Amino acid sequence: MSRDLFHSSDSVRSGAPLRHLRTLHLPGPVALELGGTLPEVTVAYETWGRLAPDASNAVLVCHAISGDSHAARHDAADVPGWWDLCIGPGRPIDTERWFVVCANVLGSCRGTTGPNTLNPATGRPWGADFPAVTVRDMVEVQARLVDHLGIQRLHAVVGGSLGGFQALVWATRHPARVGACAPIATSPRLTAQALAFDVVGRNAILRDPNFRSGQYYDAPAGPDVGLALARMLAHITYLSPESMREKFDVSRYTPRDVATAFEKKFSVGSYLAYQGHKFVERFDANSYVTLSMAMDLFDLGDSPERLRASLAPARCRWLLAGFTSDWLFPPAQSRAMVDALLWLDQPVSWCEIPSTCGHDAFLLEDDLVLWGPLIAGFLDGGPGAAPREARAGSATAQTPRPTLSPTSIFHRQRLDHELIASLIEPGQRVLDLGCGDGELLARLAARGHRRSVGVELDPRAVVACVGRGIDVIQGDLDRGLPDFRDAQFDVAVLSQTLQSVTDTERLLDEMLRVARRAIVSFPNFAFRDLREMLWREGRSPKSTGAYGYDWWSTPNRRFPSLRDVEELCARRGIAVVRRIAIDSAHGTEVTDDPNLNADLAILVLSREGAGGGS
Amino acid sequence: MSRDLFHSSDSVRSGAPLRHLRTLHLPGPVALELGGTLPEVTVAYETWGRLAPDASNAVLVCHAISGDSHAARHDAADVPGWWDLCIGPGRPIDTERWFVVCANVLGSCRGTTGPNTLNPATGRPWGADFPAVTVRDMVEVQARLVDHLGIQRLHAVVGGSLGGFQALVWATRHPARVGACAPIATSPRLTAQALAFDVVGRNAILRDPNFRSGQYYDAPAGPDVGLALARMLAHITYLSPESMREKFDVSRYTPRDVATAFEKKFSVGSYLAYQGHKFVERFDANSYVTLSMAMDLFDLGDSPERLRASLAPARCRWLLAGFTSDWLFPPAQSRAMVDALLWLDQPVSWCEIPSTCGHDAFLLEDDLVLWGPLIAGFLDGGPGAAPREARAGSATAQTPRPTLSPTSIFHRQRLDHELIASLIEPGQRVLDLGCGDGELLARLAARGHRRSVGVELDPRAVVACVGRGIDVIQGDLDRGLPDFRDAQFDVAVLSQTLQSVTDTERLLDEMLRVARRAIVSFPNFAFRDLREMLWREGRSPKSTGAYGYDWWSTPNRRFPSLRDVEELCARRGIAVVRRIAIDSAHGTEVTDDPNLNADLAILVLSREGAGGGS
Repeated sequence: MSRDLFHSSDSVRSGAPLRHLRTLHLPGPVALELGGTLPEVTVAYETWGRLAPDASNAVLVCHAISGDSHAARHDAADVPGWWDLCIGPGRPIDTERWFVVCANVLGSCRGTTGPNTLNPATGRPWGADFPAVTVRDMVEVQARLVDHLGIQRLHAVVGGSLGGFQALVWATRHPARVGACAPIATSPRLTAQALAFDVVGRNAILRDPNFRSGQYYDAPAGPDVGLALARMLAHITYLSPESMREKFDVSRYTPRDVATAFEKKFSVGSYLAYQGHKFVERFDANSYVTLSMAMDLFDLGDSPERLRASLAPARCRWLLAGFTSDWLFPPAQSRAMVDALLWLDQPVSWCEIPSTCGHDAFLLEDDLVLWGPLIAGFLDGGPGAAPREARAGSATAQTPRPTLSPTSIFHRQRLDHELIASLIEPGQRVLDLGCGDGELLARLAARGHRRSVGVELDPRAVVACVGRGIDVIQGDLDRGLPDFRDAQFDVAVLSQTLQSVTDTERLLDEMLRVARRAIVSFPNFAFRDLREMLWREGRSPKSTGAYGYDWWSTPNRRFPSLRDVEELCARRGIAVVRRIAIDSAHGTEVTDDPNLNADLAILVLSREGAGGGS
Repeated sequence: MSRDLFHSSDSVRSGAPLRHLRTLHLPGPVALELGGTLPEVTVAYETWGRLAPDASNAVLVCHAISGDSHAARHDAADVPGWWDLCIGPGRPIDTERWFVVCANVLGSCRGTTGPNTLNPATGRPWGADFPAVTVRDMVEVQARLVDHLGIQRLHAVVGGSLGGFQALVWATRHPARVGACAPIATSPRLTAQALAFDVVGRNAILRDPNFRSGQYYDAPAGPDVGLALARMLAHITYLSPESMREKFDVSRYTPRDVATAFEKKFSVGSYLAYQGHKFVERFDANSYVTLSMAMDLFDLGDSPERLRASLAPARCRWLLAGFTSDWLFPPAQSRAMVDALLWLDQPVSWCEIPSTCGHDAFLLEDDLVLWGPLIAGFLDGGPGAAPREARAGSATAQTPRPTLSPTSIFHRQRLDHELIASLIEPGQRVLDLGCGDGELLARLAARGHRRSVGVELDPRAVVACVGRGIDVIQGDLDRGLPDFRDAQFDVAVLSQTLQSVTDTERLLDEMLRVARRAIVSFPNFAFRDLREMLWREGRSPKSTGAYGYDWWSTPNRRFPSLRDVEELCARRGIAVVRRIAIDSAHGTEVTDDPNLNADLAILVLSREGAGGGS
């Protein structure tokens, strides 16, 4: 993994000249959510790129707890920013295209009003008297900055961790002002475990004798030990066990020589001591307490019902993304928001990115090959976006080519897709299960179908779909469908995937719950050639295409005939509305004994009008 | 989950009268591993049950970092012990049968010599001048206690967490004195992540201004804040995210009213404050630093080679067990030790117990139904042990009945096992893959076979095997075999499992690497009835027994014929030494066109003498 951890980087240097830093003074009084008032607020911010004449190309980037407005360098001579990887010319958030804004959050200590600024009433720094702020307060201040910049509607709001909290508040509190929202590596609220770590960190600061009830600014020493302890602890939670092992286990007993009064017996100890020490130089303990409490109080709910209620006001496109090894913000928490958004019928894509980098993954280069194009493709998309393929040289040209799953034999899939598309009526809303890189949905989109959704397991294919402007949910069909509503779609498609699903019955039932009709295509394992192979040779059937696998390594795990599938449907009260049996070698439809003569079948299924069934 | 966490329980009460506490004074000087010397050592210990006249029934129980000698109550009037669940009459460590010993470890503060005892040279408590101790030092002190008790050889040493470290040292440093060793929820060394948490905890203590270089005993206040912070932090690591959610998320914003100067805004905060506060009352900060450093320095290695070298001296039976949700001591670390022990050809069983309770699981009632009988069965076993079934009313009678896997159809399995057993020569060493509850291995054991090993996925079946005195490794055949050596066994058996394995080729190769011969039994999917079903009816074949599944729900995922398997063997250079084809309905061997007429086949395979192959 890359060594350049944001949370530990030198990118935000204490006292480094930030030549592009701007400040905006907001006259007060500014009322805060929890009842406090600030007589005035200063916002520190930076911008990159040019605002379009119609102000339609603004992207607001929101930072994490220890970040600031310096998200990226402005030129080669500038100091590094915390998200240089993501923001700049030709980068995923392309500053040649987008006008990027990043502001230091309210309550921080990096230019925006916070506990270390003067309280006009006393002439001393606020200290611990600084009123409690919430993520909503941070967003309200940002909204006034956005007003000032002449932006009515943000093209997008993007942020990770606490930045993701802000993005979520933007989308739900200012629905008319947000076109697209990308909360990354975040959650609707902290887990009890993450909350507990914050509590211990705050206690370390508050019980440091040098904290002096928060008025340590004039004292010879501040709560440096407490703040460093809090930072060390938090730092552990930003990494993953795998990345810590890789980073520290080779040199376990050979600490680097760090000038510190903290223990440095082990390499991980000297590393933590160094990080704690550096953090104290650039961050204020009162701000850390203020911002960590704002994180802890953020709460969109923990149940599907509360999440739906919290997210209901939004009116934007969504991209949520999480990282497999992130245990501080487990991807399942983001996925719960995705399920709520699907239930609300809001346009959303979701990708869980394989990573060993833990929570910090969104700041590191290791998995940039996936999350970079994902963000770029999402920003490009939206109603009226030009077809992605037409814009050669754009950032999304980096989109990795997905490896087609073994069952997606190209020529069969083309035939399959043509036939399936012919069965879908104009304008119908389609759910494509196992959608791959979005071939079928792109074909339908070109025909004018809107608001279709794909589900796909392979993250690379998910990135490709998003790059095509297709809403896609990464997920395993064997774990059931996302939380779609009943009859949310006109048609649910399962193309050449039935044979690799474990719980066939549940999947069929779910398809006919969320869609009025299901179109299922699958290889017919009673096709003549295959029957003959078992009958005459006593061998497990093998042929070409979806049958072209050896018995010991086939990705297929179900081997139904056309008749088998029809019998299962009858048994479950599902009507076969239409059947197309195909001889794919000749590209012809089979009418004579299809269970013997067809190698591929497409069934249109419906629960309407079917009798009985369990 | 149970609320009665050890690490948080009242069981070890400050100042509670421990009527059965004994002390032993060991004259010095006692030389320590890292170079220090103690002029004398006092050991606090307790015992339960009666030592047999030949001293053969002693079980040493080793405690975790904050534990002490009071492992269990001695009678109904006694205060609770930290492992009451496990130790007592009729309990897994049955005090009517075993003479149980538990001693407070060197460096602790619960009766045994530690930093809070007087340094004779100064007449003051040792404080931070107490010499660094290692787990080996703890064990050497215990060895002198065991000498004093007249025990030459311990029947078993059992311990979890730091107690597991001690058990590992006992087995490897005193091989002649340990009959059996059960390290539970432990590891060969801390992960980098666990080490990092310890570092932060120690820094909290050492940088507390009241620590006063460890000489705080006469001061008005000790490093209570630092110790409480260390404890709060450690406490989080003992729980799992799931258990914290269950415990704290319902009442997230309603903290209990705890008298504390720590933050108590959230329920988890008040809980941690309470635990930190309680801990300070009963534990000494210097001891915490001493013991956590001993844990951090414990290191049996991180590579297979180093683990093998560390474990090589042992001469005991082993049981290792871990818990799925334990992220402080991840089960994979124990499993690495199991692999090393298998490579060393030491008798070992391994079970990963499904649990949501995290590291504390071994102290809680939630999963006692599995770990209780596992420990009981292991203590009962060993060479010369009476067959378990004969001892009605023993603790192992609680062993849960495993659910047979769906492919283990009883009557077929009996026939299968009889035939397989008939193919195994007297005294051969057998590896049974997918051994279930140990039926075949028990049959072989009754015939005098020794040192056989089973591999089984279902933890309940693993517990049953251990209860039968069979060495068994919990594992998934789809992830490959444990680290057995080449040709460690005479015969590897795969009974009725071939059809549910994903990577068939690798498994066959592995079987013939670790054993000279393989015996594979499997249903023949080209059996006449099945062929006819596909041929005549165009339906996916279904019959009875291993064929008795519907296509949409069969646990089978490979459907080879006898001919298929033989062809795969030929292709991979594997010779079919013997073939038995069976008509199981009639219980007869089939010689006429077995691929058509047999429904069950048993092949004896070998690489010796086979030509070619890939």
